[in-house]
Amino acid sequence: MDPTAPISVGADADGTAPTSTTITLPPLTLRDVPRLPSALASSPAAPPPAAVPNPISRHPYFHPPATFYISPGDVSLRHAFFDLAAAAPSPLIAYRRAGPRGDLAVDPAAARAALVTCGGLCPGLNTVLRELVVGLQELYGVRHVFGVAAGYRGFYGADEDHVRLDPAAVDDWHKKGGTVLKTTRGGFDLGKIVDGIVARGYTQIYAIGGDGTMRGAVAIFQELKRRGLNISITGIPKTVDNDIGIIDRSFGFQTAVEIAQQAIDAAHVEAVSAVNGVGLVKLMGRSTGHIALHATLSSRDVDCCLIPEVDFYLEGKGGLFEFLYGRIKKKGHAVVVVAEGAGQELIPRTDDQKREQDESGNTVFLDVGPWLKSELGRWWKREHPNELFTVKYIDPTYMIRAVPANATDNLYCTLLAHSAIHGVMAGFTGFVPGPINGTYSYIPLEDVAVAKNPVNVNDHKWAWVRSVTNQPDFLKSQA
Amino acid sequence: MDPTAPISVGADADGTAPTSTTITLPPLTLRDVPRLPSALASSPAAPPPAAVPNPISRHPYFHPPATFYISPGDVSLRHAFFDLAAAAPSPLIAYRRAGPRGDLAVDPAAARAALVTCGGLCPGLNTVLRELVVGLQELYGVRHVFGVAAGYRGFYGADEDHVRLDPAAVDDWHKKGGTVLKTTRGGFDLGKIVDGIVARGYTQIYAIGGDGTMRGAVAIFQELKRRGLNISITGIPKTVDNDIGIIDRSFGFQTAVEIAQQAIDAAHVEAVSAVNGVGLVKLMGRSTGHIALHATLSSRDVDCCLIPEVDFYLEGKGGLFEFLYGRIKKKGHAVVVVAEGAGQELIPRTDDQKREQDESGNTVFLDVGPWLKSELGRWWKREHPNELFTVKYIDPTYMIRAVPANATDNLYCTLLAHSAIHGVMAGFTGFVPGPINGTYSYIPLEDVAVAKNPVNVNDHKWAWVRSVTNQPDFLKSQA
Amino acid sequence: MDPTAPISVGADADGTAPTSTTITLPPLTLRDVPRLPSALASSPAAPPPAAVPNPISRHPYFHPPATFYISPGDVSLRHAFFDLAAAAPSPLIAYRRAGPRGDLAVDPAAARAALVTCGGLCPGLNTVLRELVVGLQELYGVRHVFGVAAGYRGFYGADEDHVRLDPAAVDDWHKKGGTVLKTTRGGFDLGKIVDGIVARGYTQIYAIGGDGTMRGAVAIFQELKRRGLNISITGIPKTVDNDIGIIDRSFGFQTAVEIAQQAIDAAHVEAVSAVNGVGLVKLMGRSTGHIALHATLSSRDVDCCLIPEVDFYLEGKGGLFEFLYGRIKKKGHAVVVVAEGAGQELIPRTDDQKREQDESGNTVFLDVGPWLKSELGRWWKREHPNELFTVKYIDPTYMIRAVPANATDNLYCTLLAHSAIHGVMAGFTGFVPGPINGTYSYIPLEDVAVAKNPVNVNDHKWAWVRSVTNQPDFLKSQA
Amino acid sequence: MDPTAPISVGADADGTAPTSTTITLPPLTLRDVPRLPSALASSPAAPPPAAVPNPISRHPYFHPPATFYISPGDVSLRHAFFDLAAAAPSPLIAYRRAGPRGDLAVDPAAARAALVTCGGLCPGLNTVLRELVVGLQELYGVRHVFGVAAGYRGFYGADEDHVRLDPAAVDDWHKKGGTVLKTTRGGFDLGKIVDGIVARGYTQIYAIGGDGTMRGAVAIFQELKRRGLNISITGIPKTVDNDIGIIDRSFGFQTAVEIAQQAIDAAHVEAVSAVNGVGLVKLMGRSTGHIALHATLSSRDVDCCLIPEVDFYLEGKGGLFEFLYGRIKKKGHAVVVVAEGAGQELIPRTDDQKREQDESGNTVFLDVGPWLKSELGRWWKREHPNELFTVKYIDPTYMIRAVPANATDNLYCTLLAHSAIHGVMAGFTGFVPGPINGTYSYIPLEDVAVAKNPVNVNDHKWAWVRSVTNQPDFLKSQA
Repeated sequence: MDPTAPISVGADADGTAPTSTTITLPPLTLRDVPRLPSALASSPAAPPPAAVPNPISRHPYFHPPATFYISPGDVSLRHAFFDLAAAAPSPLIAYRRAGPRGDLAVDPAAARAALVTCGGLCPGLNTVLRELVVGLQELYGVRHVFGVAAGYRGFYGADEDHVRLDPAAVDDWHKKGGTVLKTTRGGFDLGKIVDGIVARGYTQIYAIGGDGTMRGAVAIFQELKRRGLNISITGIPKTVDNDIGIIDRSFGFQTAVEIAQQAIDAAHVEAVSAVNGVGLVKLMGRSTGHIALHATLSSRDVDCCLIPEVDFYLEGKGGLFEFLYGRIKKKGHAVVVVAEGAGQELIPRTDDQKREQDESGNTVFLDVGPWLKSELGRWWKREHPNELFTVKYIDPTYMIRAVPANATDNLYCTLLAHSAIHGVMAGFTGFVPGPINGTYSYIPLEDVAVAKNPVNVNDHKWAWVRSVTNQPDFLKSQA
Repeated sequence: MDPTAPISVGADADGTAPTSTTITLPPLTLRDVPRLPSALASSPAAPPPAAVPNPISRHPYFHPPATFYISPGDVSLRHAFFDLAAAAPSPLIAYRRAGPRGDLAVDPAAARAALVTCGGLCPGLNTVLRELVVGLQELYGVRHVFGVAAGYRGFYGADEDHVRLDPAAVDDWHKKGGTVLKTTRGGFDLGKIVDGIVARGYTQIYAIGGDGTMRGAVAIFQELKRRGLNISITGIPKTVDNDIGIIDRSFGFQTAVEIAQQAIDAAHVEAVSAVNGVGLVKLMGRSTGHIALHATLSSRDVDCCLIPEVDFYLEGKGGLFEFLYGRIKKKGHAVVVVAEGAGQELIPRTDDQKREQDESGNTVFLDVGPWLKSELGRWWKREHPNELFTVKYIDPTYMIRAVPANATDNLYCTLLAHSAIHGVMAGFTGFVPGPINGTYSYIPLEDVAVAKNPVNVNDHKWAWVRSVTNQPDFLKSQA
Repeated sequence: MDPTAPISVGADADGTAPTSTTITLPPLTLRDVPRLPSALASSPAAPPPAAVPNPISRHPYFHPPATFYISPGDVSLRHAFFDLAAAAPSPLIAYRRAGPRGDLAVDPAAARAALVTCGGLCPGLNTVLRELVVGLQELYGVRHVFGVAAGYRGFYGADEDHVRLDPAAVDDWHKKGGTVLKTTRGGFDLGKIVDGIVARGYTQIYAIGGDGTMRGAVAIFQELKRRGLNISITGIPKTVDNDIGIIDRSFGFQTAVEIAQQAIDAAHVEAVSAVNGVGLVKLMGRSTGHIALHATLSSRDVDCCLIPEVDFYLEGKGGLFEFLYGRIKKKGHAVVVVAEGAGQELIPRTDDQKREQDESGNTVFLDVGPWLKSELGRWWKREHPNELFTVKYIDPTYMIRAVPANATDNLYCTLLAHSAIHGVMAGFTGFVPGPINGTYSYIPLEDVAVAKNPVNVNDHKWAWVRSVTNQPDFLKSQA
Repeated sequence: MDPTAPISVGADADGTAPTSTTITLPPLTLRDVPRLPSALASSPAAPPPAAVPNPISRHPYFHPPATFYISPGDVSLRHAFFDLAAAAPSPLIAYRRAGPRGDLAVDPAAARAALVTCGGLCPGLNTVLRELVVGLQELYGVRHVFGVAAGYRGFYGADEDHVRLDPAAVDDWHKKGGTVLKTTRGGFDLGKIVDGIVARGYTQIYAIGGDGTMRGAVAIFQELKRRGLNISITGIPKTVDNDIGIIDRSFGFQTAVEIAQQAIDAAHVEAVSAVNGVGLVKLMGRSTGHIALHATLSSRDVDCCLIPEVDFYLEGKGGLFEFLYGRIKKKGHAVVVVAEGAGQELIPRTDDQKREQDESGNTVFLDVGPWLKSELGRWWKREHPNELFTVKYIDPTYMIRAVPANATDNLYCTLLAHSAIHGVMAGFTGFVPGPINGTYSYIPLEDVAVAKNPVNVNDHKWAWVRSVTNQPDFLKSQA
């Protein structure tokens, strides 16, 4: 962008009408997704492979208009806002827009799809499964759809781990929490998984899971490519914590924030009903504090929100204890929300605990909730031994993540599942579907597997939580 | 865009890795918003008016980093996706990004804000009011904030229609449905309103309402400008129907879709518990079918969704009766969701009804629900006199719109209110705050007052509802 | 009772300790229920018929203690309170206590049960069905259990109206509203029904329905007895209105009161958000106002509760309009709850409407809700033409009655179903199970079919609603 | 009862009609409640003290009929069912019926009421407080009503612990969980409390709390009597566990059972979504398993319900592990509900833990939930080391007890509060109001303070949970 031609603010001297200013944008870079071998021309000069017309066009009730199908040039922008005055703007990145293509690179009659869920529960899992089954069969006529039970290990499991699914079987799944396909952690054995995929003749894999699952999907994608197989793999990111980057948000997140209100309400009631009462709620979020932050903003009954992105300390000037004491003296009570991953460095850890890892290879988190509850009790007993004090601690994790998706998430899961199917049918593989600034798009699986989504505490949005809680920023240098 | 350099789809012959393609974008046009006279330089050559440093920087607990404030060049893009292959791309429109500015054009100590709500209820109204009060006082230190009761007519009403508000008074408003400031329709008398504003010394008006309210706000803006007054007016669009354009969605909409599920569930239960039962639910939506559409997609128990954007007919081949008969014979029951504005041209209307208008000047809608219920009963009695039949009709309108906002909408209302305040403090007027592709932005009030937001039934998204209901498209020519 | 020896109040001169006074009670009369011919001795001198030991005693996991089975002398009292000082106390009526008997008069291996639901929906219907199926099979080993679809007419319907049920099939029915067996009104043809029962070999009929269904069950009972058949019929009273006498309350009632709160909340929000706003809610209750009364008491936001048991009038001194005007002037708004059957005599009725009856033979009720809404509007326009006014009317009937039962009602439905089964297995017929002062009992079907349960407005309990609403008693003579 | 004249079962040879049998009942004993000195005649021969007419009779809107007031002979029966055939029937106990009396022994103008809440939270606490305030003022015109903060210690606390309450102040309390008057445990100092009562001139004490609070109220009652003071004390039993005897059930219990469903649902979803998953839910209930039992019956997703009244063991034949293994192998998962007080004798306890007591003098319970979770994990790892296994443990205690009362409990709290007031106004003291077989009655405080309410596991009702779970009875001798 030409820094010699910035937009000038308030250029209209009389402010009478909206004004228009024209700026030249930098070039745009398309970040494309891979394709199946069969979807590629054999050489740059070769003709494209024979395409199959999209069967939606033959739908008995529905007659798609010209604008119905996505064109090859349809892209979405990664960044929806810019600082035009900046001398060196961020490069503009684009992704392919998700949606149905007029011509398919995959023959629905020959397709055999496998769906698998891995990792912890998240509201909407069953809706995604339901919509993959319904979309594959009713939009495209894919008749062979299987649920693979018990996570990745199901691919090399027994026959009963491979369950044929059809629209009638999944009809009410969107009203159920959890996953009807059971889920597990770990069990990732690349060779056995790909052998299992091949042995059972699957041509489309839909892997629904968290960051570990996405990294596994990348490995499967690369192995499938190495073997030159016409089998696609799609990752559908599932993280109730909303800790996956690039996409706008993950499914189940809005539901989680909604249900978290119940826990905060209970903590607030317990706190206000006691003398010098503290209500303490631990919410999900190992690497990011999105649920804690959003639940705090929606509730407004929270006095302090502790998230992994902001270090805090307990004692001394500007510390948590000082802040809470002031709040209790002023209001008679206080409510604290702490994200799972906050304060990990403050909790004393044994050598064993330092070494431990969970089955997906994640560092084992110590439980910040009981630790903080205990520290609060010890602090008060030490500093204010003659005053009553109560801490009520609530860990609503399973009551949050096991509910069915709310209406907003149910709709989102539908669009996500359909976007995935459309992409697979177009011959894409190694990709993740997801909304980018509201536009459903296809993103390389490799990019999503490494993208993080921390709460940006330097942005003005963080001020929202501050305007709600007026909590300190725990910057010792300020103290 | 240079049509000689389109992106080529599948350019990577081996599909081994995500590829990058670079394209030149067309220029961008900034659609700016007006400013107060005091925020404008007296002439293009004059120095800018004396600015007030943002008091957030003096906040005792919070120390804004460099990235906290919005820069003059920060803009958002109206369209987040494009067809790069199109020969003549849409012009790229941008808006100013919402958020706090480092320098204010308004002195908080001299500010006197008035909040008013007009038109029908919508989940989140009280949250917007609460956050305007809290944001004005706690972020900016504005001490004079008033609620104006009973809509626009309150501006020229009695003293008791002007209620002083502070954070303590509004503390739990976000947990209440409706509006604590009472709302009315009509009563728009431009001269009296502006006279009232001036007489009471208000310097900032926040008008929350629907399209009629936005048109009224435009008139007030123009009159204020005509009189050369340093009084800003901001419109906060309230439409449970989601029928306002440019912005991503309106507040309360997600809550409405959530609660609508209860009505659809009840209609579904009534239908399946009867012999040849039909459950009929009327949902809000005079000019657009967004609630009906989203509720249908989230529920999946709906057999037919009728919206204003798609004409339908009752009798004959391809008509509603034929479709419902088939569905009842197949499943034993059917559920129909009809938006308020659907089928208006089918309902017989007396001459009086043709002339009538409501207080806001909207055409009076005939009630499609009882009419359709009656038509269904008459049809069945005529065509299938010896078979049992039941229609249960539910109109959940007030039970939907009177609830408090859910967590998602509560958060949205907060961001909307804070965005409005930041803009006013920066000296903007005649604008609407709202999210555009996820980025909160400022849009000229005049643009929003005329923007519509119909359901795009030619887009592939409409296929979602079709894949859920498999309903006919009521194109007679196809029949 | 000897009136010469009344208890003396405050007989203990120092009030230091609880005192005991002993009184002689009047004799007790047992109101017994009929038995199957096979359960009766052939003559007063003959030995009792061969009994079957209760199979619960052979349960692999459960070893019933001695106190587990109901003894032949176990009875419950109809009245749990008395005025001991009254010269002529009411006769004391007792009923057989419900529960398992040690010896059965019915061989479970030969039993063939039919379940049928009639009339309108009520929360808990599916729970009753589920527990009948589960209880019959798991407690008693009855293997032949059938659901009869579409109400009484299903007995002479097609084969597909007779659906075999087992515990797996009904597993989640308690989480569903409505009735999985479809329900209808009317279709009562005694000869065809009993012929159908005989033809299909049913030996136990469980009829779930309202007062019309109970009267039908009495007719079936008498016809079965006339034909000398060893077929039992049990009536399970279903009335969301709670208008059936003798029993403590009907299932689904607590759920209905709970959900009615949502409608009252919405009406309250609409009323307070308007200028001179009235929220009007119509609740179920044709002959009794129990739902309206309980919902009013639970909500406390109601200004006036109109029920069938209390006449009211609109105009003049002491009338509804005068009361509402006062309330609106004082509080700015008012909320009115009206039971379906209130004010029927006030609504103008055409000759046709005077003659009409519904399929169950009930008088057709005119819709008091829209009538009252319209009268309110006309009154205000006439009396206060220059003041704003709004009436928002909500009819939540189907949204209330179609929900699943809440926990309280779910448990109640279980006890009701099990009580029914235990009675049938003991050889009883022509009875209704139900709680009497908390004790599950067996009541002659004939008694229940004619018992009413009006709200006792002369009791001090009616004062509760009065203390909540302070509404007038519409006694014109007082005015 | 004359054993020579038992009722004969099936005396009617033809079973054609309900029969009547008449029996002589044993005498009835009235268990009276104490009165204030001022309500007692000075000697048996003296005339009764001057009575005040009930001000309800002067109510402007309401004209109580003759049957409105409770007569001196109105009593309720403690037992609503009997075994008439038993040779020695239980003595029949009666209590005074609650409700308004025509003549008061207390002058409302001189009354000064104090309300206090003690112990843990329970849904409905605030409703009881609200209705005491509203009932005292609106029914009786008592103008001096105070809330005493922080439990019994508030009586000798600072001035700000004594808050004047009126209907406007408490208007929306029934919609709030917890207690607006803060609650504490302990702090019971009899002398200081009674001195405080006298010093502040209170004439009526309403103490809302659990068994410790009731024992404290007995001591206060006795001290007030010893001092000869005309001050009444009423105990309103609050126990979310429903562990107080004589009365039908305690307030908040139905709400607790309702909310417990959410925790069981979540545990069930977690269990079915895992491979060999166990969902474990701990519910309130130290001495009784009512919540666990009712929640299990309402849910039907529970495989095993462990309550304090039934011992259980983990290992060996007939033990919990054996049962769960079978259930997991059969269904793939299991759900266990454990009451707080179950298995206390199984948990290893240190010497310190054996000695510890809480502030109310209750034995400190060890937390059965984490212990059982850990035992389950160790068992599986030991016995089935090569099979996946997951236990998800949920402790919803605070999320259950902190919610507002549901409609059923809200109504119950109203009747309880009004009953308390009517009794106090009639001159009673040292009593507890409560429903006995559905009739609100007055019970001596001393009786309630010692009454227990264990689940009767020998009654046929316990069979309900057995028919739902088919769990073993943990009788080792059977094994």
